[in-house]
Amino acid sequence: MSRNSNPERHAQRMAIKQKIMQQRIAQAQKEQGILLVLTGPGKGKSSSGFGMVARALGHGMKVGIVQFIKGAFSTGEQAFFSQLANVDYHVMGQGYTWDTQDREQDMAAASAAWDVVAKMLQDPSYDLLLLDELNIALKYQYLDLDRVLDDLQARPAMQHVIVTGRNAPPELIELADTVTDMRALKHAFKDQGIKAQKGIEL
Amino acid sequence: MSRNSNPERHAQRMAIKQKIMQQRIAQAQKEQGILLVLTGPGKGKSSSGFGMVARALGHGMKVGIVQFIKGAFSTGEQAFFSQLANVDYHVMGQGYTWDTQDREQDMAAASAAWDVVAKMLQDPSYDLLLLDELNIALKYQYLDLDRVLDDLQARPAMQHVIVTGRNAPPELIELADTVTDMRALKHAFKDQGIKAQKGIEL
Repeated sequence: MSRNSNPERHAQRMAIKQKIMQQRIAQAQKEQGILLVLTGPGKGKSSSGFGMVARALGHGMKVGIVQFIKGAFSTGEQAFFSQLANVDYHVMGQGYTWDTQDREQDMAAASAAWDVVAKMLQDPSYDLLLLDELNIALKYQYLDLDRVLDDLQARPAMQHVIVTGRNAPPELIELADTVTDMRALKHAFKDQGIKAQKGIEL
Repeated sequence: MSRNSNPERHAQRMAIKQKIMQQRIAQAQKEQGILLVLTGPGKGKSSSGFGMVARALGHGMKVGIVQFIKGAFSTGEQAFFSQLANVDYHVMGQGYTWDTQDREQDMAAASAAWDVVAKMLQDPSYDLLLLDELNIALKYQYLDLDRVLDDLQARPAMQHVIVTGRNAPPELIELADTVTDMRALKHAFKDQGIKAQKGIEL
């Protein structure tokens, strides 16, 4: 269990989850919003999230995107998605980087970004939310894990949420409906000295 | 080694690869086209490919997409991407399904789809190709693996190729620059009786 999760709150959450699961089993083939976590060191987590965004847009769905790392990769996705109708695109805090030594500033930026997410999580007009690299903010404990998990659990029944980033906390994996762990069998950028390539890495 | 790869051809290919690798090491930070393989049972392989397509389009790149399974999932991606400029979108053969009992027809359809790919693999105006579910066609030996690997290796130096699908053949993994193995830790659709959801599964 992550250091920043309250055991009592966790037990409550799991009791709610158990109830939801029992309802699911009783109502097989139920339609419901999916909480999808894409984690692990392999390449493709964020790309996969953005691919699902494209798919959702192809269905005419409304999508919210919040990127929790600014400038971690190039703005290819931002250039593409932010210009589209039906997409509400946010990049976390001005000047925010993981390199900064100012932890308080980082936490304030993460908290402000979560405020944006929390509003979307209360708004059923959003069909799909992509919380890109949220796991990094959780790993660094820039956000309160219980607040995040509670807000996710309280979202509209049909809303889908995709969370990406390495090192997803166990509590988030427990809450999720679908979890993919992406393993790197090979990585051109790391293993082979190939420069990060536009369209693939960037 | 897959049954349909010729050991001698494989050795030749690996000799070429070794030469390319030595050049890479000599020229660290080299710009070059990446062969990326997204495989494994986890959710997100095709989505990840489509996300990279979106990223590439955000950079103004020209993209070719060939889907090797028709109707395996809904047409969300097709609806979204096929209408965009800079995207050349193909879905393999009319009436093609993996359920058919007519293996010769399947092989003819796969071969015709590869003819489309082979042309793109000789055309440097394509910056990125997405060969969606190609691994399935290889697994069923509907395509000659040596032909596929040779054509991939002979492509323009700066062209990126993404191959998706479970059970990537070992020779393809060997040839690839980056390989992600997607593991399913949880799957809403399979584990929990939740119906496949539009925007996530479809």
